[in-house]
Order: sequence, then C-alpha cells, then structure tokens
Amino acid sequence: MILDHIGIAVKNIENAKKMYTSILHSSAYHEEYLESQKVKVAFFKTGANSKIELLEGIDVDSLIYKFVEKKGEGIHHMAFLVKDIYAEIERMKNEGFETLQDKPKLGAANKLVFFFHPKSTGGSLIELCQKQD
Amino acid sequence: MILDHIGIAVKNIENAKKMYTSILHSSAYHEEYLESQKVKVAFFKTGANSKIELLEGIDVDSLIYKFVEKKGEGIHHMAFLVKDIYAEIERMKNEGFETLQDKPKLGAANKLVFFFHPKSTGGSLIELCQKQD
Repeated sequence: MILDHIGIAVKNIENAKKMYTSILHSSAYHEEYLESQKVKVAFFKTGANSKIELLEGIDVDSLIYKFVEKKGEGIHHMAFLVKDIYAEIERMKNEGFETLQDKPKLGAANKLVFFFHPKSTGGSLIELCQKQD
Repeated sequence: MILDHIGIAVKNIENAKKMYTSILHSSAYHEEYLESQKVKVAFFKTGANSKIELLEGIDVDSLIYKFVEKKGEGIHHMAFLVKDIYAEIERMKNEGFETLQDKPKLGAANKLVFFFHPKSTGGSLIELCQKQD
C-alpha cells in the first residue's frame, strides 16, 4: 500500500504550521476545517505521494483534542491510500484487524477515511483513505 | 524535505513483519541487524520514496527496547531524506531545534542518521538521513 500521510496532533495549528514550515523548509499547500470532526488540518508535501497532516482539535469533544490532552502533541496516525476502501476494509477485517468505525467517513481533502483499532495493529493508529471523484 | 520512512518500535520483529505483511499486502524488502544500536530492522516499501521501518531492540540498553517498555509498541519516529545532512543540521540548529547527538551516526541501510529532541519538534521524534556513496 502507498503511504498517503502522517497525521500529527497539535495544540495550536498556527504555531505548528510555523514549526513545520521551518523543519520541512516548505509551506502548507492545503488547509481546511473539518466540521464533522471539529478539527483544523494543514498539509505539507513530503514526496511524490506522502504528506504531513497537522491536526488541531478545536472542541473538547474532538478526538484530536482528547489525544493531545491525554498523550501530548505528536504523531497520531499513519494513512495508506487505497483504490477500493470497502474491499480493503473487508480484506483487513478478514485478516483479524479490528475497526474503530462501521463504514468510511468523509475526511480531509474530500477523501473517504477509515480507522483500525491500534490494539489490533501493534499500537499504531492506521487509517485507510481513498480519493473520491 | 522528502519523507524517507516511519520508524515503528516493536517487541518482536518476526511477529511484526507478519502483521505488516498482512496490513500492507507486501513483504519486507530489506532486513538488517544494527550492532551499534542493538536493533533489528525490517523495511517495507510504501511509495516512491517512503518506507515503513520496523525496529526491535534486542538488548535492555537499546533505546528502542526502552521506548517499548515505557510507552508500548507503536510509531517511534519519522525520517526525512536530505542531500547534505551536515548543512541541514546546522540550518535546523540555527532555527532553534535541539539535537539528541553531536554528529550523524551510521544507521540502517548504510545511511547517515541524526535525531532532534522531540521537546523542540512538537513531541515528534524527527530523524534526518542521508544516503552514502
């Protein structure tokens, strides 16, 4: 599978954007507010396919907000790009991986996204994502 | 900068290789034992540039072993490929990032590697790496 992005949970996306602009020596190319998940996101290109996604939870109910409260800022998930997310979910479920949701949801950059339970994937939160036409 | 790999700390690399072979639907293409760091590593291709690196610390003094003991298995670091690691280290030090070592060391796949302190990079452990001829 193709690595699409690394998701990084941050407290303040404006500060984090400045920091990653400095680290990566490039600027964010896409920013968005995801109302459904109460997160602000910003993307940086880090290769032909891969990106860094910064995520700030802007509500105490946001999963990103809770993650930062509990574990602090840092790497939150890694996301792999697939062509048929429904087929990949079934494949992985059949191989014993546990899911965090019933079906894909609309995520950032108009992609369908789906998460697996980190307890079943060796402690790393893994997302599958698929581009939509 | 180009994302080179995501490093994932694991307890048992044989089990983790099986799990990631199942997740990624592909096999590890390179394996190695790094005596200097007391770690076994295995790499999976996840794109034109990006890889997943599994790391098992095989000695209680290994930093990877200590990480897993303290925080459990999971994402450990992300590594960016640079052409002149010495120049990039100086650039980042000048921009205020703190280092975890004095100079680059030999890492996996015959690359020079260098780590910055996660306290200065928003909680994520960041590695720079450079290919050697």
